[in-house]
Order: sequence, then C-alpha cells, then structure tokens
Amino acid sequence: MFNTNTVIEKPVLASWVQNTGASPLQKMMAVANRSDVISLSLGLPAAEFFPADEMTAAVETVLRREPFALQYSFPSQALKSQIVMLMARRGVECREEQIFLTSGAQQGINLLTRLLLNQGGEVLCEEIVYTGFQQAIEPYQPSIITVPTDLDTGIDVDAVERVLDRRQPAFMYVVTDGQNPMGVSMSREKRRRLADLASAYGVPIIEDDAYGFINYDEERSETPLRGFDDSWVFYVGTFSKILAPALRTGWIVAPEELIPKLAIIKEASDINTCTLNQRAISAYLDKADLPARIDKLGRVYGERRDAMVEALVKYFPADSCWREPSCGFFVWVELPEPVDMFALAKTAIETEGVGFIPGQAFAVNQTSAPSTSMRLNFSNNSPEKLDEAIARLSRVVERALQDTLCFKSYSEK
Amino acid sequence: MFNTNTVIEKPVLASWVQNTGASPLQKMMAVANRSDVISLSLGLPAAEFFPADEMTAAVETVLRREPFALQYSFPSQALKSQIVMLMARRGVECREEQIFLTSGAQQGINLLTRLLLNQGGEVLCEEIVYTGFQQAIEPYQPSIITVPTDLDTGIDVDAVERVLDRRQPAFMYVVTDGQNPMGVSMSREKRRRLADLASAYGVPIIEDDAYGFINYDEERSETPLRGFDDSWVFYVGTFSKILAPALRTGWIVAPEELIPKLAIIKEASDINTCTLNQRAISAYLDKADLPARIDKLGRVYGERRDAMVEALVKYFPADSCWREPSCGFFVWVELPEPVDMFALAKTAIETEGVGFIPGQAFAVNQTSAPSTSMRLNFSNNSPEKLDEAIARLSRVVERALQDTLCFKSYSEK
Repeated sequence: MFNTNTVIEKPVLASWVQNTGASPLQKMMAVANRSDVISLSLGLPAAEFFPADEMTAAVETVLRREPFALQYSFPSQALKSQIVMLMARRGVECREEQIFLTSGAQQGINLLTRLLLNQGGEVLCEEIVYTGFQQAIEPYQPSIITVPTDLDTGIDVDAVERVLDRRQPAFMYVVTDGQNPMGVSMSREKRRRLADLASAYGVPIIEDDAYGFINYDEERSETPLRGFDDSWVFYVGTFSKILAPALRTGWIVAPEELIPKLAIIKEASDINTCTLNQRAISAYLDKADLPARIDKLGRVYGERRDAMVEALVKYFPADSCWREPSCGFFVWVELPEPVDMFALAKTAIETEGVGFIPGQAFAVNQTSAPSTSMRLNFSNNSPEKLDEAIARLSRVVERALQDTLCFKSYSEK
Repeated sequence: MFNTNTVIEKPVLASWVQNTGASPLQKMMAVANRSDVISLSLGLPAAEFFPADEMTAAVETVLRREPFALQYSFPSQALKSQIVMLMARRGVECREEQIFLTSGAQQGINLLTRLLLNQGGEVLCEEIVYTGFQQAIEPYQPSIITVPTDLDTGIDVDAVERVLDRRQPAFMYVVTDGQNPMGVSMSREKRRRLADLASAYGVPIIEDDAYGFINYDEERSETPLRGFDDSWVFYVGTFSKILAPALRTGWIVAPEELIPKLAIIKEASDINTCTLNQRAISAYLDKADLPARIDKLGRVYGERRDAMVEALVKYFPADSCWREPSCGFFVWVELPEPVDMFALAKTAIETEGVGFIPGQAFAVNQTSAPSTSMRLNFSNNSPEKLDEAIARLSRVVERALQDTLCFKSYSEK
C-alpha cells in the first residue's frame, strides 16, 4: 500500500547530478561542428595526421592472427612493454608491472579519483584547470583547494607548501607540460620541489601528461614528475594525441602494489579496455617508427603554434599578452582590459564565425565577471586558417575593448 | 613544516577500496586461461562465432570513407537508429533520442548507478546476483536490500512490494532474461507487476539485458521490462554477446530528458565510446543480417545448453536439481546435500582439470558455509567438451557428497 500524498513523478537522481548542465566542452563541440565556423575552441588533434591506413593494416593483422582479439581478455603485455619504452623517451624509467591500461587519459583520471578520493574529501589543484578534471571529481562533491599559476613556470609551489602545512588533501592534480588551458610547462626546479613535497607530506600527485610527448622546443623539454618520484606520482598518459583519440587507449603508471586495486575499479567501470584496439596499437607500434611520428607532430603542430603567435602579433591589440607554449595545443591570451568575455565569445561566432573558449570557463570558482583571458587552440587548423581566425577574432576584440573604454570614460565623467 | 610524528608511508586510499581484493571473476579469468582446464567458470561468448572477417571489412570501409572515424566525435546517429530497430525485435518501442551509447553493458550499469545512487544510499536486488553489479555499487557503500528468487519465475515480486511499502531505494536492479548466475527468466506476469510497482512507488529499475537477445525457446521469449514502462525502466543492452565483447559497445535506453545527464557522467568517465568501433559496428550492421546471426547463435548455444543438460542427466547424482534455461549462458545446479563448495571448486581444478564458480560467490551476503549451488557455463565449450567437463565434475561431486554423508553418519553415531 503506498502513500498517495507523496506520489513521485519521475526518477529521483543522485544529489550532485540534479543541478548539473551541459559542460562547456559539450556546448562547444556543437558549435565546432558548424562548417562556417573556424573553431579555436577544442583541443582536438588534427585528423589529417591520423595514421588511418596503418591502423587499418594493424587491425587486419590482428584479426587475422589472433582469434581472441575480439574476446574479453587480459591487458596486452606487448603493449605494456611498448609503453615502458615510450616512457623512457620521456625520461621516465618504469616497469611493465607498473603500467595499467585505460580507455584514454580521462578514464585514467577517473579511476585514480575513485582510488584516492572519499565522498566530500579534499583535493588540491590550480585555480584554472582542465574542465574534464573538474567533472571527474564533481560526483564526490569535494572541497577544492586552489593555488595560483605562474604563466612562465607553472603551479605556485610555495602556495602548495603552505596548503600542505595545514591540510591533507587526498591528492594534487597537475598537468606538468602544456597545461590545459594555460599552455604553461613547469620549470625543472618546480618539478623537483613538487615531487619532494608529495613524499614529504604524504600527498599523492595525479600527473596528467596528455600533451607531454609533443614538444616544440627540444631544449625546453623536461622530465615529467614521475621521473622524480615513483611512489607518490600517479602518471596518466594517452595515445589520443600521438596516434588518435578514437582508439580510447591510454595508461597509468602507478606503484605496482596498487595495480590490483585499479583493476577492481576498472572492471566495475567497463570490464576492460577494448582488446582489439590494444592489440591493433601494439601491432602498429611493431611496424611504425613512433619516435619519428612524434617528431613530425612536434614540427607540424609547432608550425601551427608559430602561425598563431605571428597572427596575434600582426592583428591583436598591442597591449595583449601571451606566451609561446613549448608543449600542448593552446595559447592563453590576456587582453589589456577586462571585457564581458562570454558575450565576446558569442559575438565572435555570430559576427565573424570564429570560436574560442573564455578563460573563465576553466576556473574552479567560475564567475561571469568581465575578464581578460581566452584559450585559443592551434592544433586543429592549418596555418592559413589560423591567420584568418586571428584576424577575425581581433576585429571582435577591438570592438569589445572600444566599448569597454567608452563605458569607462563615460562612467568616469 | 611538517609533523614528523605522522609521516605517511604510502598513498592513503579511499576508504571503500582499502579492504577490497581481487574479484572472483579476476581469479577465475586466470584459471580459465590454463590450457589443461575445461573452464565452465566465465560467461564468455564463443570466439569461434565472432564475425572477425566481416568486422575487418567494416573497419576498412569506415577508415577509407570517414576521415573523422579516428577523432573525438558525437555518438553515431546511424548506430542509434540501428539499435532502435534491434530493440523492436525484443518487442520494445523506443526512439533514437532515448538511446545512449556506452562502452558495454558494465559501463551502462556504472553510469546509471552514478546517475541514481547517493553515497550510502539504498538499492534493491536479488539475494544472488551478477558480481559486476555488486562491484559497480560497492564504492557507494550502499545499504543493499535483497529479495529471494524463484528458480522458475524469477525475482520474488511480492517480496519487492513488501520492501517498497517500507523503503524508498534509489533503484532496483534486475536481469529479466537468463539471469546471471541462476539462468532464470522472469514470467510475463511478474514483468508486468514489477514494472507497475516501479511507477507506483516511484522507484526506477535498472534492467540488465546482456543475454536477452539470444533465446533457446522461441515460445518462452518475453518482452523485457522496458516494453511495459518507458519512464521508470532504464534498459541496458550490449553487442558483447551478439557480436563481440572486445568492441566494448553497448547502450542504455533511458527517458529522453535524462540523456544529457548521462552525457555529463560519460564525458567525465572516458569522454566518449570509441568512435571507430561505433562506426564499424554500424557499417557491419548495414551489410550483415543480424537477425539471422542472432538466430544462429540461439541454435548453437542452445545445442550447448542441451549438451550440458544431457550430460548432467547422464553423470550427476540423481537427486541433483537444475532447470533448462531459455536464455543466458548458465545452468544453475543444486546438489542434494550441502558441501564445502569452495573446496570442491579447488579440487575440481586440481584433480580433474575442470573449473566452475560456486553459487555462493554471487551472494550479496557471502558466507563460506557448506552450500549446494554451482554456476556452470555452457557457451564457451563444444558439446563434446561439455560432456567431458560434466563427467569430470561429477566425479569430484560424488566424492564430496560421499565425504559429507560419511561425516554425517559419523556425527550421528
């Protein structure tokens, strides 16, 4: 017998999800697909460099040779050993027993969050940080402790130390190279200090290295945090940027004794990472010269970075500010005056057909107040398109700055 | 400055994970791979029926035709519309807007749990239930309310009603057809009543239909719960059993207004389901006669079911008890006397080279007390191998029952 006073009209959702809406990324994906828009919005690798023919051949080889490639199966040992060699290229020594295969870097972050974070726990990260990380921790409704970022040297390690003096977060989250969205790579000195702080204070680090393999300035290339510490740094890597995102294959480098725990969490999530893709990547790596491919990607994406920076010099207001990233897919631009950046982004699409994401969209504490920062992606357009996109964007920016200055001089009257 | 009295030696894990160990499935996977063992342990589809050549051709077609098949992308509309047609075959009317693509059924269960369950919330399920479901809810440390199962008609719906009179669980979990591990399919009357209870009491149902498409007795085939209610039943389907598990592609049928919420949870989990696999399955379905394939699988797995049942008749103790499942991959056998079933499982592997999983391993409230039940898989061995496996197993069972009877008559003295 049920109480008719309390008829429930529709399924009651978990508390955290009740007020969530479409993510900025989802909204921008929709816009990015409009054919008349040049999109600087997303962090997509360029599809023209995907090794489609080689991957087809690899899939063929695997399906001909391995009848169990379509079955549930254990993670590929061959792929793990190839990842060990790949990590050596990043200056990291590790063993197959420390490698855990995932469905891309996002799942790596997700599994590690489940491993380390209690409901309502504490995490430490930068004030401005990859939205996918924010989404991964949101169901836990954590307290998020933030620290600032220096645009030349990365996360403020002094601030981290001050936090750790007082608090014991479940973990810190860091993108060491080509930070998304700010494009900054951590200085060598900060890397060493941060790794030391992790072990000194007993606070693990989730190191998201989605971009680290593709480097535009060899002499600025540094070893990731995992190279400095193998007990406290959980490294997250992926084939999405160096091969292709649709393969949904990445990896974690973790302390060996925690691999069985990750296996339990992974099995509960989706049983296992697509066996066929694991083996196809492994077969591809058997034949292909991945280091040469990575070098090539560094050159072509480097040209795109240069094209964007040159266009910014050519078209953008003189007092705007940006750095040349040595890694990653983004230039972080700051305008000389704060403007209503969400309105600017909307106008840019509507009037000039160019898309970007306001810097504020990546802030842990989001506000819609006027701001100066914009994240511009350069990986997924040709140098010519990037020149055109920045020219278009500069016109919208000029107008917005003029409006702001007019408003300012009007209010000062 | 950190307190040297409380040096932390290694990363502190989330509370729920600290006492977890390898799952029964993980342990059995290891054993199942030993070449001298005939494994009746896992629920693997038979690799010899995977459409490897057709999938190779489909991957080729897609990679030649669609340059963005290796890119991040939206879920495939074509595949969604093919799933709508597939669901019609199950007697379910639904629309593309209600389909949500997942990395297999396990991820479907995982995403729905995150959508519906709060930390420490309540869920309702059968006393003996798929371990992957138990793993999916474990991180939430829920209160699990259980109800018994009738081996002929399925979940005890009267007991469900009595629970719902008193409690308001976040959801109920049901495998309507070919329940894993007990092999039972719900009676039509119970389906209708359970769907009615869901809407009357406002408690959603997660319906796991991993096995429902493959049916051994056409006249016993029934519409899943989703066919009776489209607001309260969240249906979980998969290509794992009808095509191949390594494609890691499944789907949820959910109320349309909740699809954006699922998209947020999915994006946080692993961005998206492998674009290449989505499109390759879609290309495969364009060319292949899936209904004919499903019929064929029903025939060949039906022959295996028959072979197992005949072997049980031939070899097993006369007072043992089992049903012929009309769906699913398992026969649930009950011995006439309780035995130490975990010891029996170990002995069976060591002395006779045959593997199975004790029924207790699937109990929500596990005990190691003597018991009578065993889950025997018939999908992944030929009829001849199944005969041999049951002959071997019967020898171990006979010995165990003799020991039990000896012990009994000894204690009664």
